[in-house]
Amino acid sequence: MKKVGVDYYIVPSADFHQSEYVGEYFTTRRFITGFTGSAGTALIGADKAYLWTDGRYFIQAAQQLEDSPVTLMKMGEPDVPTIEEFLKEYLKEGQTLGFDGRVVSKGQGTEYAGIAEKNGASISCGEDLIDKIWEDRPALPHKPAFHLDIRYTGETTASKLFRIREEMKKEGADVHVLTTLDDICWTFNFRGDDISYFPLVLSYCVIFMDHVDLYMDADKADEKMLEDFAANNVTIRPYNDIYQDIQRLTAGQILLLDPRRLNYALYNLIPVDVKKVEKRNPEILMKAVKNETEIGNIRQAEIKDSVAHVRFMKWLKEHVEKERITEISASDKLDEFRAEMGNFLRPSFGPISSYGEHGAIVHYSSTPETDVELKPGSLYLTDTGAGFYEGSTDVTRTYALGEIPQMMKDHFTLVAISNLSLANVKFKEGVCGENLDYEARRPFWERNLDYNHGTGHGVGYLLNIHEGPAGFHWRIREGAYEPLQEGMVITDEPGIYIEGSHGIRLENEVLVRKGEKNSYGQFMYLETLTLIPFDLDAINPELMSEREKGWLNTYHRRVYETLSPMLTEDEREWLARYTREI
Amino acid sequence: MKKVGVDYYIVPSADFHQSEYVGEYFTTRRFITGFTGSAGTALIGADKAYLWTDGRYFIQAAQQLEDSPVTLMKMGEPDVPTIEEFLKEYLKEGQTLGFDGRVVSKGQGTEYAGIAEKNGASISCGEDLIDKIWEDRPALPHKPAFHLDIRYTGETTASKLFRIREEMKKEGADVHVLTTLDDICWTFNFRGDDISYFPLVLSYCVIFMDHVDLYMDADKADEKMLEDFAANNVTIRPYNDIYQDIQRLTAGQILLLDPRRLNYALYNLIPVDVKKVEKRNPEILMKAVKNETEIGNIRQAEIKDSVAHVRFMKWLKEHVEKERITEISASDKLDEFRAEMGNFLRPSFGPISSYGEHGAIVHYSSTPETDVELKPGSLYLTDTGAGFYEGSTDVTRTYALGEIPQMMKDHFTLVAISNLSLANVKFKEGVCGENLDYEARRPFWERNLDYNHGTGHGVGYLLNIHEGPAGFHWRIREGAYEPLQEGMVITDEPGIYIEGSHGIRLENEVLVRKGEKNSYGQFMYLETLTLIPFDLDAINPELMSEREKGWLNTYHRRVYETLSPMLTEDEREWLARYTREI
Repeated sequence: MKKVGVDYYIVPSADFHQSEYVGEYFTTRRFITGFTGSAGTALIGADKAYLWTDGRYFIQAAQQLEDSPVTLMKMGEPDVPTIEEFLKEYLKEGQTLGFDGRVVSKGQGTEYAGIAEKNGASISCGEDLIDKIWEDRPALPHKPAFHLDIRYTGETTASKLFRIREEMKKEGADVHVLTTLDDICWTFNFRGDDISYFPLVLSYCVIFMDHVDLYMDADKADEKMLEDFAANNVTIRPYNDIYQDIQRLTAGQILLLDPRRLNYALYNLIPVDVKKVEKRNPEILMKAVKNETEIGNIRQAEIKDSVAHVRFMKWLKEHVEKERITEISASDKLDEFRAEMGNFLRPSFGPISSYGEHGAIVHYSSTPETDVELKPGSLYLTDTGAGFYEGSTDVTRTYALGEIPQMMKDHFTLVAISNLSLANVKFKEGVCGENLDYEARRPFWERNLDYNHGTGHGVGYLLNIHEGPAGFHWRIREGAYEPLQEGMVITDEPGIYIEGSHGIRLENEVLVRKGEKNSYGQFMYLETLTLIPFDLDAINPELMSEREKGWLNTYHRRVYETLSPMLTEDEREWLARYTREI
Repeated sequence: MKKVGVDYYIVPSADFHQSEYVGEYFTTRRFITGFTGSAGTALIGADKAYLWTDGRYFIQAAQQLEDSPVTLMKMGEPDVPTIEEFLKEYLKEGQTLGFDGRVVSKGQGTEYAGIAEKNGASISCGEDLIDKIWEDRPALPHKPAFHLDIRYTGETTASKLFRIREEMKKEGADVHVLTTLDDICWTFNFRGDDISYFPLVLSYCVIFMDHVDLYMDADKADEKMLEDFAANNVTIRPYNDIYQDIQRLTAGQILLLDPRRLNYALYNLIPVDVKKVEKRNPEILMKAVKNETEIGNIRQAEIKDSVAHVRFMKWLKEHVEKERITEISASDKLDEFRAEMGNFLRPSFGPISSYGEHGAIVHYSSTPETDVELKPGSLYLTDTGAGFYEGSTDVTRTYALGEIPQMMKDHFTLVAISNLSLANVKFKEGVCGENLDYEARRPFWERNLDYNHGTGHGVGYLLNIHEGPAGFHWRIREGAYEPLQEGMVITDEPGIYIEGSHGIRLENEVLVRKGEKNSYGQFMYLETLTLIPFDLDAINPELMSEREKGWLNTYHRRVYETLSPMLTEDEREWLARYTREI
C-alpha cells in the first residue's frame, strides 16, 4: 500500500463477475483476515484493519479474528457504521482509497469514488494488492466445460442470440456486454466447473449484431461447444483480453450494459464517446422463464429428488439412535440417495444440515468442530439441493426425531400452513411476489411471529441457485419487483427459528402456470414441483382449518400417487403411512 | 382560435388546483361539448372536435353528443388512440396547440409541449378561450370560509407550519409553493364551500421560512381565520396575484414544489434561476396520518353515520313495497337520518344510489331520467358519505329487498368474506397496501372472479374523499406505494358487478393501528370504524369458514354493543336480529 500510495484498501468477497459463490482464487478476503465466512468486506488501513460481516457470522468472525489486528464491525448493530459511513468519516483529504476495480460492481465503485471525491481524496482501482503478497495463491480455476444438449436446454444458442438481439434493437443498442456467468452459460448452452457448486465457466462476452466475442480459456471447451460457437459466429478470445478489447469500441456504437452487474474496472474502460444504455440485462428475465423442455426436465429432477428424500426420511426415522448419525453424515447419506437416481452432477449449493438448536441458525454450515449427533427428542433440518442434468433442486425438510415437544409441533404446523397457503394462491397476470408474500406470513404475523428472510427465490437450471428477477418477499424495492410469469420456478420456503432451541423450514419449488382466462383477465396459479411429505409426526391437526387440512391431504395424495410407482413395496407402505389423510 | 392562431385547443375537466370535483365556473368542457359526466377531455380542431372519456360514460356521452359535431373517443377501446397519440399523429409542423396552462398539471403540460416540439409545432397556453365565448359563465365561487376549531383539527396552524418548514429544510428549500386545496385547508385549519361536496376554498399559497403568502378572496375569511393568520404571519393576497408574485422569486432561493400537482402555467412562470426541488408535497403524508383528536372525532363521526345507516336500513326493509321508494328518494332519506345526528355539514361526495342492474355500473349516478323504484327481489346499493364536523365518512352497503336469488346471496357472501379478510389482517411496520390487497381479492380470484377497482383509498378529514398516499390495490406503481402508518384512515371496499343483473359493494373505513412490538418488529392491525350490519338476509353461511363466520359475528357484536345505547328499544330489537350470531 505504501509503495503504490494507498491509505485504505478494500477487499470484498467477490470475483470479477459478481458471483454468489466464488472459486478459491478469489478468496482474497479470507486470505487477508482469516475469516472463512461467505460474506464480508475487509478494509485495511495503515495501522488498523476492519472486517464488516452480517449477523449470520458474528460469532464465527469474533472467534476467527481473536488475537488478530482486525476489528470486527457488526453490520446492522446500533452505532456500527457501514463501510461507506466509515469512509465518509475517516478518509481524509489528499488520501487514496484503493480496491481492485474488477471485484467491485460499477454501482459500488461509483459510490466509493463519490465518497472519495466529496472528501477531497482520490481512488486507485487498477491493482490487486493481495496478489502481490499471496505467494501460494491458488490458480484461476481451469476445469473442462461441456455443451449442454438441446434435450436439457430446449432452445438453441441461435434462438437465444436472436431474442437477445431483438431486445438490443428495442433499446437501440448494437453492442451488449455480458459478464455474469450464469447469463453467459445460459446463452451459449454450456456448463463447467469453475465455481463452487454452480456448474459455471469463468467468462465474459460481448455480443454484436453479427458476431460474438467470448472471453474464456479456449482449451476448456469441448467439441460440441466449438461446433456450436462456429455455427453462431462466436469467437473465443483469451479470458482477460476483454479489458483491452472493450477500449476499442468506437463512437457511434451503442452499448447495452447492466450497471448493477458489470464490474467497475470494465465499466471505466469503455471509451467515453460510446453511448451507453444502462438497463437490466435482458437475459435475466429470459432465463427465468423456463421453456417447455426445461419444465419437463425440472419436473423429472424434482421427482428424482423427492424419491431420494423419501428414502432418506425413511432411513433417518428408522436408524436414528440405532446407529450414529451426525449432521454431516446425514447430509452425505442424502446425496448418496440422490446419486443413485442417476444423471446426478453434484450438489446444487452448500448443504445446510442442522440438528436441534443449530436449526435456528438460518445459514448454519456444519463443520467437523460443530457436527453433532442426531438424537430423538428434537428436529433435524436439511436444506440441500441436487444438480441433475434435468435441473437443479433446492429443497428443505424438517423431520421430527422420536417424540418432540408440543411447541415444536405447533411451530412445525404453522410453517406447513404457511407453505401451503402460498402454494395454493390463485392470482391474475401482472401480480408480483410482493403481492402474495402475505399469504406465507399470515400464520406468523397473526401470532406476532415472523421469519427474517424472504419466502422464496427463483431457481436456475444448472446455474445459480438464487436466480432473479422474481421471488416472494414483502418489502417493495424501487425497480426490483417483477410480475410472475408462466414458466418461472420459485421456492416457497417459510420457516421459524427459536434461538437456542430449534429451527423449522419447509421448502418446495413451485412453477408459475396460467389458469383460466375470462373477461376478468388471465388467472394464474402455482404448481408444486417438490413432492416430499411434510412430516406428520410433527403436525398438530388442531391448529389447522378444514381448508388447510384439505391442502395438506391433497398434497400428500399427489406425493403418494406420483412417487409410489418408483418405490419398493416396503417403501410404498411406509410412504402411505406418512401421506395418510388427517 | 383563428384570432389567436391556435389549430387545436384542449379543454380538460379541471380547475387551477387539480381538484377531483370542480366548481361550476370550471365546467368548461361541459359547456363546450354538452357532455355532463365528471371525467373527459375535449379537443377542438378547425373543423372537427373530439371528446375522450372512459368506460363509465360511454353510453351517456354517446347520447349527449348525438347530433353534435363532437366525435366520441372511447378511452381504452382497441384502435382508439389516446389524446397524446392523436396529437402525435395529427398535430402538423407549424401548427399551434392551445390550452389554458392553469387547468393542466405541469406533468401533463410538459407532455403536450414535448409532442408539439417533436412535431415541429408550438404551444400556446396563456389563454382561456372558452371564457371569451361563454357569455353567462358562472362567477368564480365566493362562499364564506371558516376556521376549523382545534377540537376538530387537533393541531395548530403554527405546529403544522413548523413541521412543513422542517421538511423544507430537509430538502434544502426555503420557499414552498402549495396549490392543492385540501393541503392548504389542512395546513391553515380552515374550510369553505367553493367546490362541489368537498368543503374547500379556492386558494394558493407560498410558504417562506418566516411568513406565508396566501392567495384567496380576503372577504371569505371569518374573524378566527384572520386571527390565526395574524398569529402565523400569513398575509392574504388576491387569488390571482400568485401568477405575478411567483415571478419575483429570486436566484438563490430554493423552491420546493410538487410537479404532479402544480399547474403548468404557474410552473412556467417560476424564474429560471430559482433552483427547484421537485418532490411530493410533504403535507400529503402529514395530513394522511390523523392525530389523536382527529381519530377520536372520526370514531364519533363513524358511529353517528352508522346509527343513521341502521335507521335507514330498518326503514328501507320495513317500507319497501309499502310506499314508493326510488334511488333518489332513498338517498335523500339516508341524508335526513344523517342530518338528525347533528353537526352535519353536507354529504361528503356525490351519492351512488343504485337498484338492481344499476348496481353493476360502478360509478352510477341516478338522475330523474334513470331513477327507478326499489322493489323486492333484488339488491339496493348505497355508496354515500357524510361531512360531519367530526370528520367525513365514506360508506357503502348493499341490502337485500325481500327474498333474492341464491346467486346474489352467494356473491354478497363473497364480498363480505373479502371485506372481513382484509379488515382482519395483522402485519408489520413497513407493509404497504399492495402487500395486503390479495386478502380482499382471494375469495374472488379463487373463483376466477374480480372487481375492476382498487380495494380502498385514504379518506380526508372534511377534505377530499379520496386522499393519498396510501391505499389498498394490488398493482405496484413506481414511486407510488406507501407504507401503512398508524393513524391512516383507509376504506375497505371490495365488490362484485354482474352486468345487467346486480352490483354489490361493502365499504367500511379502517384505521391503521400499532399492535405488539417484540424482537420480530412492530406489528400493526386495522380497526374497523364503520359499524353497520352486513345484511344477514343476503348471507349464505355455507360459503363461510368457521374463521370467517367468527369475523362476521365479532363485527356484528361490536356493531350491536356500540350502537344499541343510542337506539330506541324498537330499533335495538331490530338491530339485535340483524346482528345475531350465525
